[in-house]
Amino acid sequence: MTLPEWSDVVAAAGRLQGRVRETPVMQADALSARCDREVFLKCENLQHAGAFKFRGASNALLALAERGIQPSRVVTHSSGNHGAALARAARELGWPCTVVIPRDGARVKREAVAAQGAEIKDCEPGIAAREAAVAKLMAEEGAVLVHPYDDAMVIAGQGTATLELLTEINGLQVLATPVGGGGLLAGSVLAARAMSACRIFGVEPLEADDAARSLQSGQRCGFSQPPQTIADGLKATLGQLPFEILSRGVDGIVTVSEAEIVQAMRIVLEDCKILIEPSSAVPIAALLKGELGAPGERVGIILSGGNVDLSRCPFLSGNA
Amino acid sequence: MTLPEWSDVVAAAGRLQGRVRETPVMQADALSARCDREVFLKCENLQHAGAFKFRGASNALLALAERGIQPSRVVTHSSGNHGAALARAARELGWPCTVVIPRDGARVKREAVAAQGAEIKDCEPGIAAREAAVAKLMAEEGAVLVHPYDDAMVIAGQGTATLELLTEINGLQVLATPVGGGGLLAGSVLAARAMSACRIFGVEPLEADDAARSLQSGQRCGFSQPPQTIADGLKATLGQLPFEILSRGVDGIVTVSEAEIVQAMRIVLEDCKILIEPSSAVPIAALLKGELGAPGERVGIILSGGNVDLSRCPFLSGNA
Repeated sequence: MTLPEWSDVVAAAGRLQGRVRETPVMQADALSARCDREVFLKCENLQHAGAFKFRGASNALLALAERGIQPSRVVTHSSGNHGAALARAARELGWPCTVVIPRDGARVKREAVAAQGAEIKDCEPGIAAREAAVAKLMAEEGAVLVHPYDDAMVIAGQGTATLELLTEINGLQVLATPVGGGGLLAGSVLAARAMSACRIFGVEPLEADDAARSLQSGQRCGFSQPPQTIADGLKATLGQLPFEILSRGVDGIVTVSEAEIVQAMRIVLEDCKILIEPSSAVPIAALLKGELGAPGERVGIILSGGNVDLSRCPFLSGNA
Repeated sequence: MTLPEWSDVVAAAGRLQGRVRETPVMQADALSARCDREVFLKCENLQHAGAFKFRGASNALLALAERGIQPSRVVTHSSGNHGAALARAARELGWPCTVVIPRDGARVKREAVAAQGAEIKDCEPGIAAREAAVAKLMAEEGAVLVHPYDDAMVIAGQGTATLELLTEINGLQVLATPVGGGGLLAGSVLAARAMSACRIFGVEPLEADDAARSLQSGQRCGFSQPPQTIADGLKATLGQLPFEILSRGVDGIVTVSEAEIVQAMRIVLEDCKILIEPSSAVPIAALLKGELGAPGERVGIILSGGNVDLSRCPFLSGNA
């Protein structure tokens, strides 16, 4: 696997023009006052298919098409957002698509995949079961894997969100994104290191803190058992390509508790009037703890997605 | 009182440039699929002070300043959004401001006024008590009233939201806004009649259906007692200037029930991941009932504001 570079992000931005939404940046006044920073939220929750993932998935397929490759089928495993994104990107090209989803995946994310017309294959929770199901499809049907994060074109595509944010907002001093598999953070590093002098942080749940441990120890660490976190988009293990990019390019990884994640969701709803998914609330939780930037600084955060399962949202009535 | 015209909306747009947010238009895919229309939401819930009201309030004060008038104090009565908007607009000019608010006003809206540094004067519910309190301030302090809707410059300012929407989105066939005092709808009529061939509807709670009754009977009707609706921004009686503009310019007034309003709030949260205030949900409720436009048509709706009192939101846990 080749590491993607800044030029790949620029190429992705060209490919994606008119295909992805140039999502709005919200200047979050109430939230800014609350945490004594100037906070800018890049609203990828308003991206097609409800998450930044559509950028990477589209870029990967368009890059294949550019090289004259038309696969009989594309396939991926995903807790949901990448699956829905790939399904939509494949549908736009008229390519068949299968998404392998663990049985415990959020209902709303399964429905989002189905709504895009992709085939769903169930698997057991955990990365091993997912990968086995994908390998079977590749062997039996000649399907082409579009990995959710360990793919240079996917990473380059994700970087376009940060490219847009830094083009629109001048003088950001801190940039933060959630980190699960690491595609968004790695793409953001490629864009931000080329465009800006800002400090770059990844934020992850304490219950799924493999990125923090990996960067600290200098080698990729996994989980002894599947992590339990409300941030279902961040359960993946840090990928190899993201690990290499982050090792050189990130200023730190911040971890937050489950209670802090839920509290951040509720505060974003109150202050910004938008409902974000738990994964998106993870960097907000770090901000609220005072662990991103210093007072008065301009902080950019990528709201990664908005695909909340309302029936699982802890502060909506009738729920646990 | 002189009726405002399209040229006043254009002048307002010039005055407001760089002072109001050019709010994003959300192409609401999930909501569009649900109601078989192509739905575009103009997100005035993301406007400064959380509602379109900042447009009208700012325009009124800037128009005064343009004429060399600097009042000793500006004053208004408001269920909240106009109050916060005027408070902010006055603060930006360094002018003292008092807002008269009924005792039963939403807590979050009172706090929003206070946060902008304005003085709050309490009054009893009902328009008569409000107007008496304002008259006292005008007599005793020489304060200048900026009426929430019966003011040509306020109406012209509100029209700039529709001006922006129609500039950004081509071929809208239907436009809808909530109607309370009628400032937003009247301003929208001025802009839309000049810029577009779209049909224009106002939507109001059945419990506060004075606009529907007024336009039907050809004369302004009030309420025998203060209306009881969750849409606290729409309790006002239709103003004289809006009445005259709407009588000639609106295609109809649709009414919706309280249950339909709450359901619309929840559906917007689920489909669009934004929390809107009940007044904003009123046109969405009409859309969901199939009473705005025909299948396949392009429908624009102005989301008027996002100042929800979370403690009063019926579907947030811990609430009634």
